Amino acid sequence: MAVRRETNSARVTLRDVARAADVHPGTASRALNAETRSLVNPETARRVLEAAEELGYRPNPIARGLKTNRSYTIGVLIPDITNPLFPPILRGIEDRLEEDGYTPLMANTDNDPERERIDWETMRSRQVEGIITATADRTDPLVEDIVDSGLGVVLVNRRMDDPAVRAATPDDRAGMRLAVEHLAGLGHRRIAHIAGPLEFSSGFDRREGFLEAMRDTGLEPDPELVVVSAAFTESEGAQACRELLDRGHAPTAIAASNDLIALGCYDVLLERSIACPSELSITGFNDMPFAGRFQPPLTTIRIRPYEVGAAAAELMLEALQDPGSQPRQIQLEPQLVVRESTGPPPELSRG
Amino acid sequence: MAVRRETNSARVTLRDVARAADVHPGTASRALNAETRSLVNPETARRVLEAAEELGYRPNPIARGLKTNRSYTIGVLIPDITNPLFPPILRGIEDRLEEDGYTPLMANTDNDPERERIDWETMRSRQVEGIITATADRTDPLVEDIVDSGLGVVLVNRRMDDPAVRAATPDDRAGMRLAVEHLAGLGHRRIAHIAGPLEFSSGFDRREGFLEAMRDTGLEPDPELVVVSAAFTESEGAQACRELLDRGHAPTAIAASNDLIALGCYDVLLERSIACPSELSITGFNDMPFAGRFQPPLTTIRIRPYEVGAAAAELMLEALQDPGSQPRQIQLEPQLVVRESTGPPPELSRG
Repeated sequence: MAVRRETNSARVTLRDVARAADVHPGTASRALNAETRSLVNPETARRVLEAAEELGYRPNPIARGLKTNRSYTIGVLIPDITNPLFPPILRGIEDRLEEDGYTPLMANTDNDPERERIDWETMRSRQVEGIITATADRTDPLVEDIVDSGLGVVLVNRRMDDPAVRAATPDDRAGMRLAVEHLAGLGHRRIAHIAGPLEFSSGFDRREGFLEAMRDTGLEPDPELVVVSAAFTESEGAQACRELLDRGHAPTAIAASNDLIALGCYDVLLERSIACPSELSITGFNDMPFAGRFQPPLTTIRIRPYEVGAAAAELMLEALQDPGSQPRQIQLEPQLVVRESTGPPPELSRG
Repeated sequence: MAVRRETNSARVTLRDVARAADVHPGTASRALNAETRSLVNPETARRVLEAAEELGYRPNPIARGLKTNRSYTIGVLIPDITNPLFPPILRGIEDRLEEDGYTPLMANTDNDPERERIDWETMRSRQVEGIITATADRTDPLVEDIVDSGLGVVLVNRRMDDPAVRAATPDDRAGMRLAVEHLAGLGHRRIAHIAGPLEFSSGFDRREGFLEAMRDTGLEPDPELVVVSAAFTESEGAQACRELLDRGHAPTAIAASNDLIALGCYDVLLERSIACPSELSITGFNDMPFAGRFQPPLTTIRIRPYEVGAAAAELMLEALQDPGSQPRQIQLEPQLVVRESTGPPPELSRG
């Protein structure tokens, strides 16, 4: 029996105890920890301890052996929480961490390296036990510094080129392939791509996915139809779209690197009285909240950001509980959501 | 001179020092505090200390006298960060707190009293110095408990009936008045209201503002045209809208208590093939991100959530630096944003 409890499948978990005691796992965690027990209602603590006893629960011995003075706090670095992509990622992180008694400490960095460094210093002074960051470049000196400091690091939504750094992301290449195949299936041949910043894996991998999928579909991508937006924003997306259209290579569809860039394209189409989708089809990426309520409702790639956040938290807990474990990168399968911003190219719809 | 420095207007602030040293105020704060100085680059710390010396900066003596072992952390309770109202409020809180060297620690409560209490316990164990909460009911036992614990409490977006509890909110009554006056000005007489939950000041005050404004405009509100939504969500808003229309009192306009409820109304109008605005006008409240991109673009009340958050942080800093000061409630002036979801009532537009 003792041996069987060592294996993951048979071991009684904190969640089992919480369920048996009918409390939140965070509460169970605090009740089981002598340092934090006083924060829990005494009657509740008694119920949790009884349930743990009854089920034969014992805390993960590797995790317990690690440290004695724990903060139970994980720093979370986000570019900007007002970007609608990040709230569900943060919820996923928070909900998964909380199940194991950890609390996220979030800061906005605005992708500003100085601010990132200040936030990291603040978090270090708060004795966080690890950092989950959505702000990393593909090669990021700050992440290297955090790794050097001995803290666990997990990337979320973006990954680094170095596969030794844990990361949870959507499968960006596969997602962009879905967009290209959808457009090619509608009959488009002159498909343009507005990439996001290439120093971020999201921008880079989606562009790679675009080029690969075009070739696999038998369409040689026209270099004049691939532009790079300076940021994943509506205004920079609009700027990139103007540049693209001014080149005069007349795309019939644009696969944008995210939904905000796609909205920037919508603005340029309005400026220039180009009808979407009858004259130009647009696809986004992320399926941000309310994407189905825009004019026209946006065809896009759904990435399940809550699950991406929860997966990042899972990787952080792995790193904390077993620091010697092999780092993993998790890529979540995206999904095409067809709405009203895509249709056949004008030569076909007229014909 | 010494006396003049005691007054707020002439006193050299942390921000003055930060500006002179060309660093972020958070960095200046850490450099000036012996406990946290090691977190700052030594060259930067030297520049900050020189600037402080030169300007004659001295830390607020009342604040410094308070405590010796400071966490510099403020707990922030939010119902749900994926509700688009809250990210900018949180940014406002974070940016203002950071200027004075404080860090927010945010948790989502889902308006669930048990979860609120767990989050509060977690924050207490993290030794937060105060709590900013967006989750309070108009009479809230948890807030009373926090007050009893001796911590500073500031409400944000919602307030309590008790004026002794600090709060920063939009002026909800004035905002709803703007909506009613706009609709009345277009010629509407049968104006309906879908209220938010009345246990929250936002829902309650907006309904009061609706009733007052109707009477002041010479329109006796029809009780059959006032319904209450069970939550500030699209699905509950849709439910309330169905109930309203099923009563058969044929409103020509609906003033919704927030933008999500207004979007729920959009869904019901689609279900029932009612045209907006030619058959029924809709107004929202908040001017959430992308409200101008919906079908039709939403006429709503802009509340400047970033500034509401910053004002709440300001009140928290007042409470920390001068605990004996008279609590204030700040109400920020809202603004009408006219888009395409409102127009004259059908009898006028046909005539």
